[in-house]
Amino acid sequence: MSELLVNTQNGHLSASQRIPAIARPFVSERAAKTLDLVEKFVEEECIPADEVYTRQIGETTAQRFASHPQIIEDLKVKARKLGLWNMFLPKNHFKEGAGFSNLEYGLMAEYLGKSRTASEATNCAAPDTGNMEVIAKYGSEQQKRRWLDPLLEGKIRSAFLMTEPQVASSDATNIEMTIKRDGDSYVLNGQKWWSSGIGDPRCEIYIVLGKTAPNHPDKYAQQSVILVPHDAPGITIHRMLSVFGYDDAPHGHGHVTFTNVRVPASNMVLGEGRGFEIIQGRLGPGRIHHAMRSIGAAEKALEWFLARLNDERKKPFGEMLHKHGIMLERVARSRIEIDAARLAVLNAAIKIDESNAKGALKEIAEVKVLVPAVNLTVIDRAIQAYGGGGVSQDTPLANMYAQGRTMRIVDGPDEVHLLQLGKNENKRGPAHKRRIDAQKKRGEELCREYGVGTNDKLYLNRKSGEGSRL
Amino acid sequence: MSELLVNTQNGHLSASQRIPAIARPFVSERAAKTLDLVEKFVEEECIPADEVYTRQIGETTAQRFASHPQIIEDLKVKARKLGLWNMFLPKNHFKEGAGFSNLEYGLMAEYLGKSRTASEATNCAAPDTGNMEVIAKYGSEQQKRRWLDPLLEGKIRSAFLMTEPQVASSDATNIEMTIKRDGDSYVLNGQKWWSSGIGDPRCEIYIVLGKTAPNHPDKYAQQSVILVPHDAPGITIHRMLSVFGYDDAPHGHGHVTFTNVRVPASNMVLGEGRGFEIIQGRLGPGRIHHAMRSIGAAEKALEWFLARLNDERKKPFGEMLHKHGIMLERVARSRIEIDAARLAVLNAAIKIDESNAKGALKEIAEVKVLVPAVNLTVIDRAIQAYGGGGVSQDTPLANMYAQGRTMRIVDGPDEVHLLQLGKNENKRGPAHKRRIDAQKKRGEELCREYGVGTNDKLYLNRKSGEGSRL
Amino acid sequence: MSELLVNTQNGHLSASQRIPAIARPFVSERAAKTLDLVEKFVEEECIPADEVYTRQIGETTAQRFASHPQIIEDLKVKARKLGLWNMFLPKNHFKEGAGFSNLEYGLMAEYLGKSRTASEATNCAAPDTGNMEVIAKYGSEQQKRRWLDPLLEGKIRSAFLMTEPQVASSDATNIEMTIKRDGDSYVLNGQKWWSSGIGDPRCEIYIVLGKTAPNHPDKYAQQSVILVPHDAPGITIHRMLSVFGYDDAPHGHGHVTFTNVRVPASNMVLGEGRGFEIIQGRLGPGRIHHAMRSIGAAEKALEWFLARLNDERKKPFGEMLHKHGIMLERVARSRIEIDAARLAVLNAAIKIDESNAKGALKEIAEVKVLVPAVNLTVIDRAIQAYGGGGVSQDTPLANMYAQGRTMRIVDGPDEVHLLQLGKNENKRGPAHKRRIDAQKKRGEELCREYGVGTNDKLYLNRKSGEGSRL
Amino acid sequence: MSELLVNTQNGHLSASQRIPAIARPFVSERAAKTLDLVEKFVEEECIPADEVYTRQIGETTAQRFASHPQIIEDLKVKARKLGLWNMFLPKNHFKEGAGFSNLEYGLMAEYLGKSRTASEATNCAAPDTGNMEVIAKYGSEQQKRRWLDPLLEGKIRSAFLMTEPQVASSDATNIEMTIKRDGDSYVLNGQKWWSSGIGDPRCEIYIVLGKTAPNHPDKYAQQSVILVPHDAPGITIHRMLSVFGYDDAPHGHGHVTFTNVRVPASNMVLGEGRGFEIIQGRLGPGRIHHAMRSIGAAEKALEWFLARLNDERKKPFGEMLHKHGIMLERVARSRIEIDAARLAVLNAAIKIDESNAKGALKEIAEVKVLVPAVNLTVIDRAIQAYGGGGVSQDTPLANMYAQGRTMRIVDGPDEVHLLQLGKNENKRGPAHKRRIDAQKKRGEELCREYGVGTNDKLYLNRKSGEGSRL
Repeated sequence: MSELLVNTQNGHLSASQRIPAIARPFVSERAAKTLDLVEKFVEEECIPADEVYTRQIGETTAQRFASHPQIIEDLKVKARKLGLWNMFLPKNHFKEGAGFSNLEYGLMAEYLGKSRTASEATNCAAPDTGNMEVIAKYGSEQQKRRWLDPLLEGKIRSAFLMTEPQVASSDATNIEMTIKRDGDSYVLNGQKWWSSGIGDPRCEIYIVLGKTAPNHPDKYAQQSVILVPHDAPGITIHRMLSVFGYDDAPHGHGHVTFTNVRVPASNMVLGEGRGFEIIQGRLGPGRIHHAMRSIGAAEKALEWFLARLNDERKKPFGEMLHKHGIMLERVARSRIEIDAARLAVLNAAIKIDESNAKGALKEIAEVKVLVPAVNLTVIDRAIQAYGGGGVSQDTPLANMYAQGRTMRIVDGPDEVHLLQLGKNENKRGPAHKRRIDAQKKRGEELCREYGVGTNDKLYLNRKSGEGSRL
Repeated sequence: MSELLVNTQNGHLSASQRIPAIARPFVSERAAKTLDLVEKFVEEECIPADEVYTRQIGETTAQRFASHPQIIEDLKVKARKLGLWNMFLPKNHFKEGAGFSNLEYGLMAEYLGKSRTASEATNCAAPDTGNMEVIAKYGSEQQKRRWLDPLLEGKIRSAFLMTEPQVASSDATNIEMTIKRDGDSYVLNGQKWWSSGIGDPRCEIYIVLGKTAPNHPDKYAQQSVILVPHDAPGITIHRMLSVFGYDDAPHGHGHVTFTNVRVPASNMVLGEGRGFEIIQGRLGPGRIHHAMRSIGAAEKALEWFLARLNDERKKPFGEMLHKHGIMLERVARSRIEIDAARLAVLNAAIKIDESNAKGALKEIAEVKVLVPAVNLTVIDRAIQAYGGGGVSQDTPLANMYAQGRTMRIVDGPDEVHLLQLGKNENKRGPAHKRRIDAQKKRGEELCREYGVGTNDKLYLNRKSGEGSRL
Repeated sequence: MSELLVNTQNGHLSASQRIPAIARPFVSERAAKTLDLVEKFVEEECIPADEVYTRQIGETTAQRFASHPQIIEDLKVKARKLGLWNMFLPKNHFKEGAGFSNLEYGLMAEYLGKSRTASEATNCAAPDTGNMEVIAKYGSEQQKRRWLDPLLEGKIRSAFLMTEPQVASSDATNIEMTIKRDGDSYVLNGQKWWSSGIGDPRCEIYIVLGKTAPNHPDKYAQQSVILVPHDAPGITIHRMLSVFGYDDAPHGHGHVTFTNVRVPASNMVLGEGRGFEIIQGRLGPGRIHHAMRSIGAAEKALEWFLARLNDERKKPFGEMLHKHGIMLERVARSRIEIDAARLAVLNAAIKIDESNAKGALKEIAEVKVLVPAVNLTVIDRAIQAYGGGGVSQDTPLANMYAQGRTMRIVDGPDEVHLLQLGKNENKRGPAHKRRIDAQKKRGEELCREYGVGTNDKLYLNRKSGEGSRL
Repeated sequence: MSELLVNTQNGHLSASQRIPAIARPFVSERAAKTLDLVEKFVEEECIPADEVYTRQIGETTAQRFASHPQIIEDLKVKARKLGLWNMFLPKNHFKEGAGFSNLEYGLMAEYLGKSRTASEATNCAAPDTGNMEVIAKYGSEQQKRRWLDPLLEGKIRSAFLMTEPQVASSDATNIEMTIKRDGDSYVLNGQKWWSSGIGDPRCEIYIVLGKTAPNHPDKYAQQSVILVPHDAPGITIHRMLSVFGYDDAPHGHGHVTFTNVRVPASNMVLGEGRGFEIIQGRLGPGRIHHAMRSIGAAEKALEWFLARLNDERKKPFGEMLHKHGIMLERVARSRIEIDAARLAVLNAAIKIDESNAKGALKEIAEVKVLVPAVNLTVIDRAIQAYGGGGVSQDTPLANMYAQGRTMRIVDGPDEVHLLQLGKNENKRGPAHKRRIDAQKKRGEELCREYGVGTNDKLYLNRKSGEGSRL
């Protein structure tokens, strides 16, 4: 067995053997086998390739966003041969996918999250995954043939344009991009940012959220989703946004303007005013994918942490780092936190599988807040163990931290989910109050039945002046 | 439907409906029905009875530890009628139990954890549960008839005497109580504390850990477990220990001395030198029970928290508390943390069910650290929402906090479990180091194959003096 | 030198030598000498006496709240001989006091906070301190002679009745107790709780906040403060509130009703409608006293923590606790947190000395939130190091935790202070926004002046279709 | 007044007016005036110039590390005219400096920490400051004329080469760079990394720590410090290390090798074997400078946070962010944490002023751990309020986070300081144990004197069988 994949050596367990006991009934034999293949592919092929990928990207901004590293195409060939392709498309909705449940793909996504190249190599990279889901679920036949097929083949890439810089767009009703009908066309005007993936030279299709009816009295009926080819005149990518100094080239996060961008009316998805519905359905599984990749990142950080503890050259104060209790405590807390967070994600994935994203709102929101926090905590501990190496390019940790930090922001910042969760929980509040009051009352009745007095152990009932002066 | 149990009213879900999706395959229909019964019994009968129980305990120390509140016996009658009796004894080990798995009983224990009286009312109270397991698993027929039968009937109670005040007894090899063979008897000398349950006037049997071979070269073969009747001459309960001011009467936590206490040789359990084995087996499921009761306590705290937010008389700064975002954030975080922690416990329970406590060491240790921390955090938030009421006898919160705080100490403090977990994780460290090094090496090879240079985006290679003077 | 006071032995420093460098200019030589006396008195006399005090209190509730431990009177005699009496009354306001500044007394209060008896032994115990300040500052000559003089002599004790159970009284405008003029009298009706100190048999005077003009359009002019003798007919102390499981006897926290309680009109303090003004002035220095006593409690917890680490009988896994890095990290963090918190309190005290409580609003609020959190964290760490001993009566830690926990609630819960601080900070927000915007604008101008282009390192400016298709 | 400096408008206070009350006695009138000048210079000149500076740096790595932005020279001219030059050199040690104490300069450093250009513009930038201190304090006259004079004039820059990649160099005894005497020269061999500032084309002198006597039995006498001109043959800067994704050009953090690098013997500082002494003296004040700049960074983050809360375009859920209690709580906690941390730094600075770095070891270590943690927490909160803008180049926050994160690592990681602090605190442990034991013993004696019994409120003393069967 290759030393690139040590898990099954020396008593180590393979990916399928490490599935938490509670999740096993939900995993088919085929999925378990695929999971082991994914792990092997990621550890043996993708992680070593990450370095090549990074070096195949240019130096200047213009070069970097024109890059198309050859190694990613070579990995894709290998992945397809292994049958590792489009695993993300859930079996209960899409015939085009590999036939796995959200839970099963979630388990695989953990391993994909350990490598920079693995998701794209298996055609499971965001935002294509969510975009493919949207077109597969809501697109016309024409739209599917034109855009979904090449996306499923990994021939082109896509972007999802929703967020706008000038408003609080975590609340989608604030969106200002206009989409106006003009004859057989729609005309778009406005700006977008954090348009992720738009930097890639192979990115050919933008899925754009805008308003067709900005004055509609129902503020959830104002939005529409429309497909915009990347080369439609009037689009300018002004700049790429950095994330803690990283440009994420060639993928990138664009700041884009649309000036009288015209597309055929047939590019509208599902129909005018259906935009909110579409983006709602899109976000659920995507959050699970992000969360499981984050779990994978956290595991990777913990593995690097453990590797550092066992680096024989590093002996502060004469002892290797794994002899220091402070470090072992952090390892243990990381293990505890990752394991609990993973179960939360898997439970949410099952909830989606059993109903749909709407039926799993609570579980998805919980995971959306919990997992990035755990991931960042674990990475930060690993960085600290590496010292200067931890913040630099010599480990993947600093980059993982930067990526992980955005997860507290994208698809709605923590606070939006916390308030929503809090409000939903609070709906149970009045009923709890009534029950507790009723239980107190019943308790008082029982006390009378049993002939016991006040409920106060510290009963005093001292009248004015009594006892006060000895 | 009684307003004492509001869960199924108005869209609320019953206990069995609230089982996390991921755990459902492990719950039989019978267990689901029993779970709903448990919830109903706890909410409608036990919680109102808690008040009566508290008042039926006396005022002075001597009175308090002679109390035997009548209401507990009345609840027991009701519980047996409902079939809620001895649910804790896991089906795969004991014919005497109710036939549930650890996972199924774990779900029930959550609800028992919401009431002071519920565990005892269903004969599922610690330390009797662990003690019954010990005798059922390791006891002789004679020992079973003499002690297990009345315990299973709820006629007597028991104590487990392990911890000693003068040593660091979280490491059981430090125990100093001696058990010496003398003819047909054993003679015990030493002291114990935190002998929980020993205060109860119905507590008739002590399960005592001591050393029969203090000089045995194998320090795990020195210990033995022996059964000691409460009235054996030479035993003195000197005092009861308080927990944050609470005496937990009549149960109590005793500080006890044994002076030449003589018991028949037939009271030895399993044989001399088997003590370590016995206590190891005892602790696994018990930790799951504690953990799930703590989950129940946390849920109860959250319910009280929510009730407070909906108290119309409490309007600081003109708005009810549920209008304050600070409070909603805390509610949401509590929900997230409880839900993840519960999954961790359920997964550990399943792991025990599928193998045994030893096979679930990691999962149990994780839960042992995680759950008390979550529980205390949630209770503390609820206390804060209640202000003065939160720390006083007007809510159950302060007492729950005190109980919860001991959970970070009993059965080994956090630190013991963290270090053990950390050391076990660290065993994987050298393999991770080798793999990461191999991946780096393979990455370098690939870079050469692909003809790309150094891995450093920030490559400079400036020789002395080059470029340094413009 | 007595081993009861080890600080100056073996290189240890006395209290005055440990004054932070930054605070020294504010401490007179006389105060420094007194400070050393306070430390000596607390360590050698009060802490050993605490045990006697506890034992001189009875067992039943009625007995406990009739207790007047003799040792407290003996300590008072000693304290007066040493000149340690009424140190709390700040020199710039009151001729009756010992002539120290708030800063100087604050330093002393830290040591008083280490003993249960020390504050009362030096006549510096709450709530008498705040009450004496109120009467000294706002009382009539008659009120002073009748109540202030015996209070200053330590002959009687007092209570401050403000909080009410049925409303959110952290907002004092919600108070409902009525005070109605009726001829030469005022008549009081209503209820109060958390009336601390009311349990003491020597508590003779209640300072009561109520409403004389509940319908006054200015809601800060509705309240008045009036003096009510403890034996005025119509007062009933129904019960004492517990804090966790502690009753704090004989001091206690009462739940009291007033039914047509009549007092002479001359008992009104300062005049009708001045209540808000009076309680505002009262709270500032009191919060500093509480905070410095909490700092003392935290130091005491750290001392106990360190003592445990050096207990040779406690060797989990073969090493004394101070060999464990986990423990040393907690010690170090405790030291860091306590030292920073102390400086914050001392700075607030100086701010009061230089202006008054109103001028130090921000600093007092900061301390009110910061110090209890630090104190609880440190105590909790010490509890954990002691295991079962930490939560029981064998250490002072659990009781200190309970006391410390109330500090997050009394005089306004954390949240009230956080929101107030947040709102005050936010007032600077618009100015910061304008400045930052102006700086950005100026930056753009400078860039033009210097002939450098856009500010975006990751500038791309790619038009539709450019570069996309290699 | 310019809107670039709003502090004194509308009731805002100037820098000198905002000096904490407790620190005022330590600040001369001249320093107070200079402090206001510093604030004005930073806000009005440096912060707007930061943008120009950034844009004047090139795009490729080679360009970026050959940059020498003109604006920095223009700012230096302005700064000298204002008398803002070399404020860091403490008055009690160096005649060359501006004559301020560490405390006074610390207050100024807070403002310098708000701008990328301000420290260099006033010739107060690390690592030059520490390097100038070293040469001024320990250098020969020849060394001073050759290197100190141009450094004091801001004509050249310098680097400090200590850390090595292959060992745990947080423990300086592990250093491996060799310095061998060879005739009138020393010859250096080895490698260094995190050689900060080495990228700057004006960096002409390296202060290098190596070993002249690697086998000396006293491991603190093995090291020496020697001055190496940047153009000595045999030096190669292989690459620059990134911090997260930032290269910090032109300053940079170099990875350098020395191959038979020969320098005159007269370049030795102070003498062979004095290296440890030199670096010890160097680190104290430097840590205070770092800490106060971090305080400034935290204040800046809070200002940006507040600006965001008052951005009228950002209204999630219909309300500006400052209406959300969650945000106000974070603002308030930030204020509390920054203010306490600042006092800790100022106290440490005074401690250095009153003795020296060695006399302030504890205070410096406390600050070294506390301040970066506070800074990162505050920046992280601000990032979260900005969402996508927070992690990108549109705010200074992400870059500040990256810089701040290194502060938990440079000059020794947190853990080194925590363990050192913990061990030092622990030295007091045995004395505390003896005192506590003595107090307990004295307590017992007192109890006997007063005729009160056991100290156990929960005394039971029940013999076998007593009371156990009702």
